Amino acid sequence: MRKKVTLKQIAKELDVSISTVSKSLRDSHEISEDTRLKVQAFAKLYNYKPNNIALSLKNKKTKTIGIIIPEIVHHFFATVISGIEQVANENGYNVIVCLSDESFDKEVINLEMLANGSTDGFIMSLSKETQQKRDFHHIQEVINQGMPVVLFDRVTNDVFCDKVIIDDKQAAFDAVHFLIEQGFKKIALITTVDYVSVGKLRTDGYKKALKSNNISVDEELIIKIEDIENCAVKIENLIKEQNCDAIFAVNELFAVTAIKIAAKNNLKVPDDISVIGFTDGIISQFSTPSISTVSQNGIKMGRKAAQMLIDRLELEDEEDEHYKTEIIETNLIVRESTTTK
Amino acid sequence: MRKKVTLKQIAKELDVSISTVSKSLRDSHEISEDTRLKVQAFAKLYNYKPNNIALSLKNKKTKTIGIIIPEIVHHFFATVISGIEQVANENGYNVIVCLSDESFDKEVINLEMLANGSTDGFIMSLSKETQQKRDFHHIQEVINQGMPVVLFDRVTNDVFCDKVIIDDKQAAFDAVHFLIEQGFKKIALITTVDYVSVGKLRTDGYKKALKSNNISVDEELIIKIEDIENCAVKIENLIKEQNCDAIFAVNELFAVTAIKIAAKNNLKVPDDISVIGFTDGIISQFSTPSISTVSQNGIKMGRKAAQMLIDRLELEDEEDEHYKTEIIETNLIVRESTTTK
Repeated sequence: MRKKVTLKQIAKELDVSISTVSKSLRDSHEISEDTRLKVQAFAKLYNYKPNNIALSLKNKKTKTIGIIIPEIVHHFFATVISGIEQVANENGYNVIVCLSDESFDKEVINLEMLANGSTDGFIMSLSKETQQKRDFHHIQEVINQGMPVVLFDRVTNDVFCDKVIIDDKQAAFDAVHFLIEQGFKKIALITTVDYVSVGKLRTDGYKKALKSNNISVDEELIIKIEDIENCAVKIENLIKEQNCDAIFAVNELFAVTAIKIAAKNNLKVPDDISVIGFTDGIISQFSTPSISTVSQNGIKMGRKAAQMLIDRLELEDEEDEHYKTEIIETNLIVRESTTTK
Repeated sequence: MRKKVTLKQIAKELDVSISTVSKSLRDSHEISEDTRLKVQAFAKLYNYKPNNIALSLKNKKTKTIGIIIPEIVHHFFATVISGIEQVANENGYNVIVCLSDESFDKEVINLEMLANGSTDGFIMSLSKETQQKRDFHHIQEVINQGMPVVLFDRVTNDVFCDKVIIDDKQAAFDAVHFLIEQGFKKIALITTVDYVSVGKLRTDGYKKALKSNNISVDEELIIKIEDIENCAVKIENLIKEQNCDAIFAVNELFAVTAIKIAAKNNLKVPDDISVIGFTDGIISQFSTPSISTVSQNGIKMGRKAAQMLIDRLELEDEEDEHYKTEIIETNLIVRESTTTK
């Protein structure tokens, strides 16, 4: 029996990207006619079954929810999965998890695989690379096929679907405003590169809090990390050269790394420098000092996303296109890593 | 169209366990004839499709590996998944993850769902409840259907299949022997209840290390935790009442909790009490003091499990029943939580 050919194999064979193969098979005019015809011919020859066999399965409910997330080592994503599992179980649904490893291609491949009759709908958080490319055709495709998608945390305005987010800008504003209220004036920011949507929003919230308290934004106090592996040097330079009195970090790994590096440079947290993180994970809870942080309520976010997806799956009128964006409340948890000035 | 009925729904409808439904459908004589006939009639009425449609799909490769693990919040399981993903990607396989949440029923349901044509084989670590019940018929069933299974970490001798483990007893022996070499004599053990296979083996290793150094085992120094939520009181009693000079904890949550409670009772780690954990997760790396620990090499374990599964999937002679158990080497990482006496 001939093995089933996949998008990935076609892409490799013809030396084009997976996105090009996918678009060619949908006859997208973004792709040159030459390439489109070549891909289509190849797919036909090898009996490629596109996703739209899902269409014919539309009425065959699998009672399964597919989750696609960037990575699993993040405690935040693990708590969201727990929340999704809770509501799924309460409603008799199973859950399948796939990882994109922050890769656009893996996100496309996983979505293709699960859309092929394994799940009724999806809950997703976008990979870094997808956000960078701004290519969301794979998500649009499954929605067009009648499979609902709920995006959470890392979302995009370019896809019309239900979304669950926190107000990242407001949450960052609250954290920085809290530091200002405690008397700090030289507050540094450790954030991500701008194309990571939540990093950008948290950076905006930091700036807004400074401005609304008449503190000017000093770009020297802002460092943008692309890759956690190489963040130590940048953070050490910041701490040594800028003499800041507080740090706001947009995730808990940045926060705990800042605390470690401060200690290495004989600065005590919180006596010499206060630190607030983002994400109430096990690091924030168990490190010494325990870390003051913005809690994203991952469980609540997961529960809400699952409820929105199941509501849409079980909706009588399937044509309701009034998509909602739910905002989950955050709260600041004050622990040992902050003090007053 | 009538919805597909699941094992779970049949179990609920007839008020019997999922295991009973599954065994009845295989006509197992463990189940009374009355119940068997009732279940079979019900399944027929509702057009239940058992797993063995997987049999007819046997030659249709999905190029997908199913992973079923107890939980995802454990950093160790996350690293094993990373290792599996690496080898899977290198060999053109996708990976699907399902969680048992330590529940036997969820393990059975997930296995049933994925065996229904979604995956070619499985990599699993058993749920606590499965280990407690010692009921492995669901795993035996998919193996009988020709789908290979590789068990890792939490395994059982009752199923013949490939396995990847560490030598938990030896690793625990090494950790405790190290403490004895540093001059400690009153070494406490924080472990799990005995039915968790790895907890039991690590307890055995602890006892063996004491005995081989002519230190008698004092049961007062051993506490067995069933549930992480309620471990604090037991650990606090141990620290306050037993005056131990070192602690060996069989996972990193127990280790970091012991360090926190020691601090609360004005005991400094490592000056007043040394602590060694198990699992080199983010807590061990990032807590202050950083925690000396046994590294399980989760990535290596995942890579090996994936390689064994893929080898078996791509084996020419499908009837090879020489199952192997691979042992992954552990190593002791000495950090700040231990000193010499």
